[in-house]
Amino acid sequence: MEGAAVVSRRAVQRLRGGHPWVFRSDVERRPSQTAGIVPLEGPDGAPLGYALWSPLSEISLRRVETDLSRTPDAAWWHEKLRAAIARRAPLAGEANAYRLVHGEGDGLPSLVVDKYGDVLVIQLLSAGVDAWTDAIVSSLVELTGCTGILARNDPAARGREGLPREVKLLYGEVPRTVEVVEHGVRYLAAPWDGQKTGAFLDQRENRVLIGSLARGQALDCFAYHGSFALHLAKKADQVFALDVSAPALARVHEHAERNGLTNIEPVEGDAFDILRAWYKEGRRFDTIVVDPPAFAKTKSAIDGALRGYKDINLQAMRLLAPGGLLFTASCSFHLSRGHFFEMLQDASADSGRAFALRAITGQPLDHPELITVPETGYLKGALLEAMS
Amino acid sequence: MEGAAVVSRRAVQRLRGGHPWVFRSDVERRPSQTAGIVPLEGPDGAPLGYALWSPLSEISLRRVETDLSRTPDAAWWHEKLRAAIARRAPLAGEANAYRLVHGEGDGLPSLVVDKYGDVLVIQLLSAGVDAWTDAIVSSLVELTGCTGILARNDPAARGREGLPREVKLLYGEVPRTVEVVEHGVRYLAAPWDGQKTGAFLDQRENRVLIGSLARGQALDCFAYHGSFALHLAKKADQVFALDVSAPALARVHEHAERNGLTNIEPVEGDAFDILRAWYKEGRRFDTIVVDPPAFAKTKSAIDGALRGYKDINLQAMRLLAPGGLLFTASCSFHLSRGHFFEMLQDASADSGRAFALRAITGQPLDHPELITVPETGYLKGALLEAMS
Repeated sequence: MEGAAVVSRRAVQRLRGGHPWVFRSDVERRPSQTAGIVPLEGPDGAPLGYALWSPLSEISLRRVETDLSRTPDAAWWHEKLRAAIARRAPLAGEANAYRLVHGEGDGLPSLVVDKYGDVLVIQLLSAGVDAWTDAIVSSLVELTGCTGILARNDPAARGREGLPREVKLLYGEVPRTVEVVEHGVRYLAAPWDGQKTGAFLDQRENRVLIGSLARGQALDCFAYHGSFALHLAKKADQVFALDVSAPALARVHEHAERNGLTNIEPVEGDAFDILRAWYKEGRRFDTIVVDPPAFAKTKSAIDGALRGYKDINLQAMRLLAPGGLLFTASCSFHLSRGHFFEMLQDASADSGRAFALRAITGQPLDHPELITVPETGYLKGALLEAMS
Repeated sequence: MEGAAVVSRRAVQRLRGGHPWVFRSDVERRPSQTAGIVPLEGPDGAPLGYALWSPLSEISLRRVETDLSRTPDAAWWHEKLRAAIARRAPLAGEANAYRLVHGEGDGLPSLVVDKYGDVLVIQLLSAGVDAWTDAIVSSLVELTGCTGILARNDPAARGREGLPREVKLLYGEVPRTVEVVEHGVRYLAAPWDGQKTGAFLDQRENRVLIGSLARGQALDCFAYHGSFALHLAKKADQVFALDVSAPALARVHEHAERNGLTNIEPVEGDAFDILRAWYKEGRRFDTIVVDPPAFAKTKSAIDGALRGYKDINLQAMRLLAPGGLLFTASCSFHLSRGHFFEMLQDASADSGRAFALRAITGQPLDHPELITVPETGYLKGALLEAMS
């Protein structure tokens, strides 16, 4: 077909394996058009559907449609967005903030849409999807009745696509903070300048899980604005919220007040140092959360990251009282689930104590991890119990 | 110490890694006593605690205590059993049948105790623990007030210990069937001759999970006596319960009646054949459970087992309606969690459809999987959603 991208045999095999990406080295004929959506063909001319086209990216093509009769146009985007949003319906009763579109996980590669109450925060992470911004924005307004849409187009991925990195209002108004309500807990998300698109929506169910089991003396090791600590505080006697950032801890304090909680104590400092010191002092905890930032930002950083994860988990394991619970997570994509469990096994062996695996967690309903697309999954969690 | 078992450096390292087993090849001096509990020493004479001693087994010693001041005696067994039983307290409100002791997972290697209502079924799986039968039985009677204790001492592991394989009443009376009530569903366990100790207690929470999400046309592929099918039938319109065994299906029928359920249809036949035939006929299902018997009974059987798991999962994936849910499990110890997920990835790729990982399940509270003792874990499950 004229204008089609022709891809190699290797690319065809990859697509057959359920992965939508075609790398630059597998593009045998580049399409003539600028960034957008193009037809896809195998080396033998066999049609393979349609793909987002990024002329400058290492990931040149991202397949979005295999059905040749469904040429992606504005109505196609509308229908795909409608289906993704409809899938989240069960969450509406539990929270007012969740992800509406998780890129490849929803068959909409490189597009992220997060809902915070009445406003949306979106990320257009490829040149192909960026070219469809207007259609996406008008569909989202129609489908959600939102009062504002902010583009958090600041991730590094945009640079690799030859796109500007910027934070930009695309529709209506978006306030500096939005109140998130999840399972009865309230906190403020910061769409313009908070982590990710304003909060860590992917940990919602994990917060509820450990919150439901929390008791006694509790510890949130990388508290950020306190979203785990708030859930812990509902059941635990006392919660210590650790963070290196004083502004983050000011928000923890504000959030505790917002929830009428008086049992959260912010502690400023480095979690590695504080846990070591508290162990030596003989302090012990009944409930601990270890949810660090991604230690492995790149593949080559895995070894160092594994040492960091093991150390912080070992410190937490030693601090647990008998029968205590540890919820531990890693959001490093480059750390596989297998590595994560091996790391926990090493830490457990070094602790000299026995830990039972009470639960294994992945990503919630609104962050679908496709089993054939590893890049859609990054969050791994485990709930451990100190058996003695 | 006189009478102590002396073990090699390699054994010491293994013990330090959090694993309680010492293999025959690592025993440097065998204790003089018959099977029971013996002191343990390193090659340098350093005391290592106490271990169950099995003179004939490949697994010669199983450490049960590291604290030298706590010589295991009848009071020690009583305290260990009390702690294990106390840990299950949260389950009492949900079910009347659950595991009270999960061997190594509870620090009581080679001992299994399952509760079915007022009776207990126990397994004494090493010569060391078998020697303590009387103390264990009298403690269990005192701690639980049970009306009967049956020894399901028929597993092959008993043979490797030089112990008779038998099913034997150890206390009171144990009926042929006992009604299990779990989360509102009732079925009959068969302590004397059912699978395992009478039912599959380890899948209780998984039955509740998929039962809570079931809808439309549902399919239970290896139904046995229908414990998954019963939970599915609470929410689904219709449930087809497949099994090769006519007697098993007769029990499915009886269990449906016991729960007042009229929407379960038993289907006799081979799941592999039936799923293929139904796919060709264009039948589709909204909810499917694939919980096969262990295809890999030994390490050498893994390759064949993987083909079997992949095939049945592929057939189930193809039969799912868009948006449908598949709960799939493997209870083969020899199939690692990593292999299980790779197998699902292969099946998903072959199906040509996208599946999201909605949940990862391991073992419930009453079957503690110690992260340093792989042998305590065997059950892996995944909840998948057909994304289109």
